[in-house]
Amino acid sequence: MKRIEFFYDYASTYSYLAHREIEALAARSGAEIVFKPMVLGFVFKATGNGMPAAVPAKAAYMVHDVRRWVGRYGLQFHMPSVFPVNTIRALRAAVAALEDGTFPAYHHAVMHAYWANDQDIGDGETLAAIAAAAGLDGRRIVARAEEPAIKDRLKANTDEAVRRGAFGAPTFFVGDEMFWGNDRLEFVEEALSG
Amino acid sequence: MKRIEFFYDYASTYSYLAHREIEALAARSGAEIVFKPMVLGFVFKATGNGMPAAVPAKAAYMVHDVRRWVGRYGLQFHMPSVFPVNTIRALRAAVAALEDGTFPAYHHAVMHAYWANDQDIGDGETLAAIAAAAGLDGRRIVARAEEPAIKDRLKANTDEAVRRGAFGAPTFFVGDEMFWGNDRLEFVEEALSG
Repeated sequence: MKRIEFFYDYASTYSYLAHREIEALAARSGAEIVFKPMVLGFVFKATGNGMPAAVPAKAAYMVHDVRRWVGRYGLQFHMPSVFPVNTIRALRAAVAALEDGTFPAYHHAVMHAYWANDQDIGDGETLAAIAAAAGLDGRRIVARAEEPAIKDRLKANTDEAVRRGAFGAPTFFVGDEMFWGNDRLEFVEEALSG
Repeated sequence: MKRIEFFYDYASTYSYLAHREIEALAARSGAEIVFKPMVLGFVFKATGNGMPAAVPAKAAYMVHDVRRWVGRYGLQFHMPSVFPVNTIRALRAAVAALEDGTFPAYHHAVMHAYWANDQDIGDGETLAAIAAAAGLDGRRIVARAEEPAIKDRLKANTDEAVRRGAFGAPTFFVGDEMFWGNDRLEFVEEALSG
């Protein structure tokens, strides 16, 4: 089966913009998505890249740019009060959810909670409540985020992203071909059909 | 008549990628393009932004990204031997060409010379020869680039870009709405039809 690897961080606005589109694209293309949560801040540090919003003019522009994409995709969006947010726990929990087979519900709930509902996903209690509201065992998910093997797996994803050339999020791979940004999904789709 | 302002620098790969597309888009939309040559290096300095290729992983990715756009647009492309290039003279000459009514021929010739023919547009003799090969008075164009009023106009364009929020190239405006990148041309077209 065709595969798309999707490296993302819940802290990344453009990962949120991409997260439903990539699923629709995968369905159209008969491809499966391999989800790779990663720590974007570490990717920035490792590559010498900076977060886009660190340039004030870019941050001001992004507000408009994001609004355009939100309109095109028909997403809900509310700029989070807590931004940037520490997503380490939420990302570790995503790794655990991937193992447990609860990933889609967890993933969609966290994306929506942070980017549409203005919930602080950096807070453990809040994160557990978000998972619970999605019908999952919130306490278990947050507890599993503390397991060393889970932590190691998130670190391995992040290291892998950097090793393979990523410098931002979202980053997609089709085979060894890398694509950066929700605005490159058309090229991802072409690569899958090639 | 509808207007698109196009702030660009000959040194900017993505300005090259956009330069024919924006003309086709303007023709489709019944809009005129107001060309605004600007000094991208100054925009970077003024806004605290960095050139994308300064991050090695991003520079490596851009090679692939540019190849994809070149294929989509059907452009010729050859990575210039002299990169980055000092485009101050070529941009000043563009300002002069705008005044003289020789802009389209000059502009297309310089874009092609640098990004497809690997000519060093930072060199005055080369620049004059490029203009001459396009049927223009190459010596006059290069001489006019030294006129104080022309220099001032390029500086004014650059200051205007920064004042209005630009931090990179290409940057487009439809009214006060700003769009950054060839990958936002669809949104430019929507704004013109709105």
